[in-house]
Amino acid sequence: MENFHMQVDERLVRRAQELRPRLREMIVHPVRLVDIIPRDGDFAAVPASSLEGLEQRPLGRGDRVVFDFGEHRVGYISFTLTSSGSPADAPAHIRLKFGERPLEIAEETADYRGNISSSWLQEEFLHVDVLPTALRLPRRYAFRYMELLVLDTSPKYKVCVSDIACTAVSSGDLSAVPPLTGVPEDLTEIDRISVSTLHECMQGVFEDGPKRDRRLWIGDLRLQAQIDYLTFRNLDLVKRCLYLFAGLTMNEGRVGAGMFTEPEPRVDDTALFDYSLFFVSCLYDYWLETADEEALTDLWPTARRQIELALRELGEDDVVRDRTGWWCFLDWGEGLNKQAGAQGVLIYAIRQALLLATSAGDTESGSWLQEALTRTLAGAGRLYDEEKGLFVSGAKRQISWASQVWMVLAEVPATREERAALLTRTFAAKPEIPMNTPYMVHHLVEALILSGMQDRALQILRDYWGGMVARGADTFWEVYDPEHPAVSPYGSRAVNSYCHAWSSTPSYLIRRYLL
Amino acid sequence: MENFHMQVDERLVRRAQELRPRLREMIVHPVRLVDIIPRDGDFAAVPASSLEGLEQRPLGRGDRVVFDFGEHRVGYISFTLTSSGSPADAPAHIRLKFGERPLEIAEETADYRGNISSSWLQEEFLHVDVLPTALRLPRRYAFRYMELLVLDTSPKYKVCVSDIACTAVSSGDLSAVPPLTGVPEDLTEIDRISVSTLHECMQGVFEDGPKRDRRLWIGDLRLQAQIDYLTFRNLDLVKRCLYLFAGLTMNEGRVGAGMFTEPEPRVDDTALFDYSLFFVSCLYDYWLETADEEALTDLWPTARRQIELALRELGEDDVVRDRTGWWCFLDWGEGLNKQAGAQGVLIYAIRQALLLATSAGDTESGSWLQEALTRTLAGAGRLYDEEKGLFVSGAKRQISWASQVWMVLAEVPATREERAALLTRTFAAKPEIPMNTPYMVHHLVEALILSGMQDRALQILRDYWGGMVARGADTFWEVYDPEHPAVSPYGSRAVNSYCHAWSSTPSYLIRRYLL
Repeated sequence: MENFHMQVDERLVRRAQELRPRLREMIVHPVRLVDIIPRDGDFAAVPASSLEGLEQRPLGRGDRVVFDFGEHRVGYISFTLTSSGSPADAPAHIRLKFGERPLEIAEETADYRGNISSSWLQEEFLHVDVLPTALRLPRRYAFRYMELLVLDTSPKYKVCVSDIACTAVSSGDLSAVPPLTGVPEDLTEIDRISVSTLHECMQGVFEDGPKRDRRLWIGDLRLQAQIDYLTFRNLDLVKRCLYLFAGLTMNEGRVGAGMFTEPEPRVDDTALFDYSLFFVSCLYDYWLETADEEALTDLWPTARRQIELALRELGEDDVVRDRTGWWCFLDWGEGLNKQAGAQGVLIYAIRQALLLATSAGDTESGSWLQEALTRTLAGAGRLYDEEKGLFVSGAKRQISWASQVWMVLAEVPATREERAALLTRTFAAKPEIPMNTPYMVHHLVEALILSGMQDRALQILRDYWGGMVARGADTFWEVYDPEHPAVSPYGSRAVNSYCHAWSSTPSYLIRRYLL
Repeated sequence: MENFHMQVDERLVRRAQELRPRLREMIVHPVRLVDIIPRDGDFAAVPASSLEGLEQRPLGRGDRVVFDFGEHRVGYISFTLTSSGSPADAPAHIRLKFGERPLEIAEETADYRGNISSSWLQEEFLHVDVLPTALRLPRRYAFRYMELLVLDTSPKYKVCVSDIACTAVSSGDLSAVPPLTGVPEDLTEIDRISVSTLHECMQGVFEDGPKRDRRLWIGDLRLQAQIDYLTFRNLDLVKRCLYLFAGLTMNEGRVGAGMFTEPEPRVDDTALFDYSLFFVSCLYDYWLETADEEALTDLWPTARRQIELALRELGEDDVVRDRTGWWCFLDWGEGLNKQAGAQGVLIYAIRQALLLATSAGDTESGSWLQEALTRTLAGAGRLYDEEKGLFVSGAKRQISWASQVWMVLAEVPATREERAALLTRTFAAKPEIPMNTPYMVHHLVEALILSGMQDRALQILRDYWGGMVARGADTFWEVYDPEHPAVSPYGSRAVNSYCHAWSSTPSYLIRRYLL
């Protein structure tokens, strides 16, 4: 944004830094070598030669091996490179490529035409001057597969690779996660993968994805915290993230959409209407979970401020003014009009703010929040198309999943039955704008559950996340469209994140609602 | 070689390691930015925008800057990368390329078709995850020019570069080199560049070239030591190298052609007929220079052994048996028959060994060496073509510069006048095989001087090394052919060494003979 400046509350930032977690380290090794082959428009890893004796297998120019670490890992790679033949009379030149899925190994970097930075491709070129050398790469990678390609040695020697290890890191303790019992096998597996996904995203903060963006986004944080309360219960990590967002705000105290933590914490200069409001939601969930008075006292003013700022966006009709550009997220995908969804999120957050105001003893805020709720509910009514029985969004009166789902989550239809009827009509209407992310599908599933439509919710959860399982997911993917498995919001699936926090919500949905 | 094994004399190796030099460090900075442009089949660096304000000039995808460090440097690069614009929301991906000359920057790595390892190309790809970051690259580079190319940042930020520095290293102390006075300006300049060249090659050992092979070769060592005695007088470095070669020999105590020093000293598994004999020459020169009794006592047995092994190669006619393959160096280039040159080197070394035997009090060796001298001189006579008045080599009776020059240096023609006449006839004959390296031209110049043909020697020195100066040499090149400036023994001039020890001999020639 223009004229961006960061407001710093040093006390809150200091508190956030005190809560910085210790990362747990685990040394893991590859479990097999694989070949990557094309399969059904995607790529698959199939067993290759044994790892046995690899340390004595000379690799010369053009030779490659692909290591399979058995499951998704976030960490630091080390290995030893030795020479075979004459002494190394020229540097060894090798390339390493890391993939969460086989396709990232298979797709050629030179062919990358994505619209986000190619720097996300996990690929390194290394010269090794002295052999043998024990190497430890300084960067952190997110991967299951690691390819080592020998670009050149010399005619007089080849290289051998040994002692391949990954120091895997996470601030989550898997042993703290309560086991899931009495649940069908497929849901147990979906829960297991969800927990793995969240585990990999739990680092110094809750990251959206350990491969990309490796960053704290508040939209992801809200869901991560909800899952965390039912699994890892790393409550201090949630608190740390809340204090970072409150301690480092944008102009006028607006909570930013994302947070950088290195070399020192810094709020991103991007705000999103729904994401700023989710600060309220995050604090609401955290307060219900912990009754942490310190946090409520410290953070309520920031939460309240987000409602104040959001209400400025209402038009005279008490409806959020429509806008173009990247101002409200809701979901990826072209063409989604955000107005009605934004209205839903605003109401959802006002309801939560009301409880927080009461808890904080802020009666003055309680009163204007009550008034705001009345106004925004009235505004929402103006977005309702009586004839179609659906909410419409924007000047072109677009009908989308996002609009209906957020109106339901905001309890705009007053009763459970009315909400169920709205969702049933939405299924029948087959909205032109599809859902593009697990993030959006999650909200649909939760909306269904809260409308008493458990069966339908469960079916979608099983079909959608089960579809990723059937396609070999070790962790859940940022983007998944069963009809278009190669879809990417970035113009290249090689930069999609295949371990993405907002996709790990089945553990929350199952453990909260389906047990 | 097959069945290679290394013989270790731990006492000698220990002594060599005690003599390991302390590297002097000097922090240097780029002096300007340049553009690299094609010129006359080569590339030239022309001044570009100022360095002033560079640290605030944002560089985005595809932007590049080329730093000129003013002169040749061997060292470690450090710089700071900062972000400009929004915080860095993706890693910065940059490429660094280093060139001793502009052409190494200009030539595309993807186009490399050389026959030695592409790993010699000084190019690195770096991902920088956190900005700002102060980077220090772990590898040592040999360069004057450094290109920084931004491969990608993100649409939200660019990078700025600041604090660019090179920690230049050498074990040579330039302030110890006696100034050259009373010499014409062009020779002063040639001497200055020679001293620079040797300085850059003086590291933990005498390296052949700091870019490539970065290694101790005995053929280079002999010349480096000769120059060193008249310039840096880093006598311990010579001694260290001699002890390494004697402490780590090949089968039967043969001195190898080259030596690796990292991770620990190890002789290369390559032997060359002339190079093994140059151990005798190196010790001879060192002994004359230092009268170091310890070294003579420790190293004479190794020197003597090289003559014994070489004599085995004589046929019944007392001529070195001709061979194919890479068995004797003499010079780069296709088609040179090595037989006569090898005979010359053998006689040259026997003469030196005779003095060493006497100095070491080894009368027994003195006696068989005297006999060997007689035999090999007789053998050399059989290579003399009376009709042509030239020495011929191999079954095809090839006439080359190398053959005549080494017969002169070996004093096979008994008088100075006969040697001068031989060289005069060689010029007239215009040998079919050209001289390809400064190494060979050096031996011609020294042969001319030792034959009383100073004027001709000086003319060649001025034309040849002056030609490199005219073409912008900061240090002298491994390979130089005035008629074919793009020549490379490796199929690509991008991997030629442009700072090569064996090319820095003008300081020796000028200071020893021409002052």
